[in-house]
Amino acid sequence: MEFSKASLAMRSSEIRRLMALAADPSIISFSGGMPNNSLFPIDEVDALWSKLPRKVKEAAFQYGPTSGYPALLESLRAYLESRGIPMKDKGLIITTGAQQGINLISKIFLDEGDTVLTESPSFIGGLAAFRSYMAQIISAPIDDEGMIISELKGLLDKEAKMPKLAYLCPYFQNPSGIIYSQERKRQVLDLLSGTGIVMIEDDPYGELWFDEADKPLTSTMIGMSGHNVPICYVGTFAKILGPGMRLGYVVGPKEIVDRLELAKQSMDACTSTYTQVIADAYLRENALSPYLDKMRPTYKRRATIMLDALAANMPDGVTWTKPRGGFYVWVTLPNGLDSTQVFQKALDGGAAFVIGSAFAPDGIKNDSFRLAFSHTPEDRIEEGVKIVAEAVRQFVK
Amino acid sequence: MEFSKASLAMRSSEIRRLMALAADPSIISFSGGMPNNSLFPIDEVDALWSKLPRKVKEAAFQYGPTSGYPALLESLRAYLESRGIPMKDKGLIITTGAQQGINLISKIFLDEGDTVLTESPSFIGGLAAFRSYMAQIISAPIDDEGMIISELKGLLDKEAKMPKLAYLCPYFQNPSGIIYSQERKRQVLDLLSGTGIVMIEDDPYGELWFDEADKPLTSTMIGMSGHNVPICYVGTFAKILGPGMRLGYVVGPKEIVDRLELAKQSMDACTSTYTQVIADAYLRENALSPYLDKMRPTYKRRATIMLDALAANMPDGVTWTKPRGGFYVWVTLPNGLDSTQVFQKALDGGAAFVIGSAFAPDGIKNDSFRLAFSHTPEDRIEEGVKIVAEAVRQFVK
Repeated sequence: MEFSKASLAMRSSEIRRLMALAADPSIISFSGGMPNNSLFPIDEVDALWSKLPRKVKEAAFQYGPTSGYPALLESLRAYLESRGIPMKDKGLIITTGAQQGINLISKIFLDEGDTVLTESPSFIGGLAAFRSYMAQIISAPIDDEGMIISELKGLLDKEAKMPKLAYLCPYFQNPSGIIYSQERKRQVLDLLSGTGIVMIEDDPYGELWFDEADKPLTSTMIGMSGHNVPICYVGTFAKILGPGMRLGYVVGPKEIVDRLELAKQSMDACTSTYTQVIADAYLRENALSPYLDKMRPTYKRRATIMLDALAANMPDGVTWTKPRGGFYVWVTLPNGLDSTQVFQKALDGGAAFVIGSAFAPDGIKNDSFRLAFSHTPEDRIEEGVKIVAEAVRQFVK
Repeated sequence: MEFSKASLAMRSSEIRRLMALAADPSIISFSGGMPNNSLFPIDEVDALWSKLPRKVKEAAFQYGPTSGYPALLESLRAYLESRGIPMKDKGLIITTGAQQGINLISKIFLDEGDTVLTESPSFIGGLAAFRSYMAQIISAPIDDEGMIISELKGLLDKEAKMPKLAYLCPYFQNPSGIIYSQERKRQVLDLLSGTGIVMIEDDPYGELWFDEADKPLTSTMIGMSGHNVPICYVGTFAKILGPGMRLGYVVGPKEIVDRLELAKQSMDACTSTYTQVIADAYLRENALSPYLDKMRPTYKRRATIMLDALAANMPDGVTWTKPRGGFYVWVTLPNGLDSTQVFQKALDGGAAFVIGSAFAPDGIKNDSFRLAFSHTPEDRIEEGVKIVAEAVRQFVK
């Protein structure tokens, strides 16, 4: 299936350009949605690996079952139960990153011309996966509490053909940083209930709340009862261990997960056993909790620096989200201003971010941009925001 | 796209069953096409990892470019040049195992109903990838020197629509163990030249020749000049480092590799940087050569034990290939006997293998079976072959 449409190709080269920028040390980059290299638990993982029995290391070098390394499936089930997901009747499959999880779900459900419902804005990788299977994308805008229900209802009433999939990132959403209220989650489930639409609940950041008071908001939709929505919950080790491990997973109805396994078999046979062995030791030896205890205040501090700098430097009329967790602030320009113009000026000044159209389901809407505070060196965040604000001021008087 | 056809589903559960058997220590299993766990270079990799600078370990935890970790792309290019592949004008992409390489090539070239040309028998993972994109498979039988040219010519003359892809595994082929003669490679290229068919040259075992005299036979088709066939050469670290790393790669025309990169981006974003860092250190610090120096006589000894045991125990009428490298012996029963019957008897006796129909492009032909000598404990190979031969004798008088 050929799918190298111009828009996709542009997006691909755009991403490459942004990655190159992020790697240029003279640029203060807010582009990358990943932890800073200094934040990875390298010593902890080295210590865990060195203690592994020979037999386990041997298994790490070997093929494993397509569904995942059995020990990791076990420890991951225990972890997911601890996050409030009743695992007993659920299927679980380890994937080569969350991206593969989303791609596999797309592969088994989407035929050319099928519709996928997303948030607007939405995650670039999700959009790319849906587009790669020639799906049409419709989207409902979000506010500070999640998808706007009247907009979602309007979309579902209007569509002659029901969407096959609904894709949501409810916890510290990428790119907006917002988190759904409990009421909004319930309303979305009520609207989707019985429609046959399969929901993808994408949760890369849920563990990264800043204040314990917000932890209850990260309780999952797949863990909620009283609805009739088949939910595929997609998780990842990217933000709680390291993206380089390429470890994600999908929890869902057993019959769906069985089909994902079949699709994965011909896609890459199995996920790296080597990194699965590491992740299993990481969960089993309780290395995750202390790591999260360290990361939560770290990301909170970074977010606070960014939000303070935005408040101090942005001109009137510009608005932005106030994340309570995760990696992102979403900045919106007044009067439909084009963020590409701002991007060019900011780059001239020495700072970079990702323009809004990258996250637009229609690929066009571009009056916002994403600032990630996760990757930039902490002592350069304020300076970088000043550069971005200065660029904005060239257009907002 | 739904593709859970009954035949595929059966194959999937069949594989799971065989994997379970291979894990049962009371069964002598010749099923698994992988190195024995005792053969992995664990200590060497641990030593390489411990010497890596902090910055490199940090990079190992991080996302990398979709095309691959830059240092590995560089060291891999040097390695491939040393194997006689002129890399200057070629594209190179790292994939999550060779299976993903084959799948990505299928994704960009195949639409439903397109045709793929394979050897008969052929690699189960290749067949699964082609089928997952709803391709029709046509196949030319092989003899001890490769695809039979008259059969290949007959196929190409007969087809109204040219195949999009031709899939070959020319070096110690899976499942047959045969290696192409230089003349046969040339003849295949001559026949495909100018047809527009893209060739996949799959080479997982080329480095594993038993006798240096055969090394020239492993020179690649992508390295041959004087033809007009676009070749995608698929390689892997599975047999020269460990399948658990999930590291493969595709070498090919730059414009094809660019499209593979685009497809991979939405498939899993990038291959594990963690295992790529290990593979780069492995190549760069020259750990591969000494490992191969150890593996070649190891696999030769295993093959010799198996071939001697076959000669001593198989009844007349049964034939088998005499591999000069790789992992496999392909056994053919007389009079079209069904290998599933033999499999059941062998299993009752305590030995297992993979029946021929798993490798049949039509999914039916079943008068042969594959014995892998790579994975079985060396001191049980003779005993296992005796059990298999005894099972054969129940049907071959």
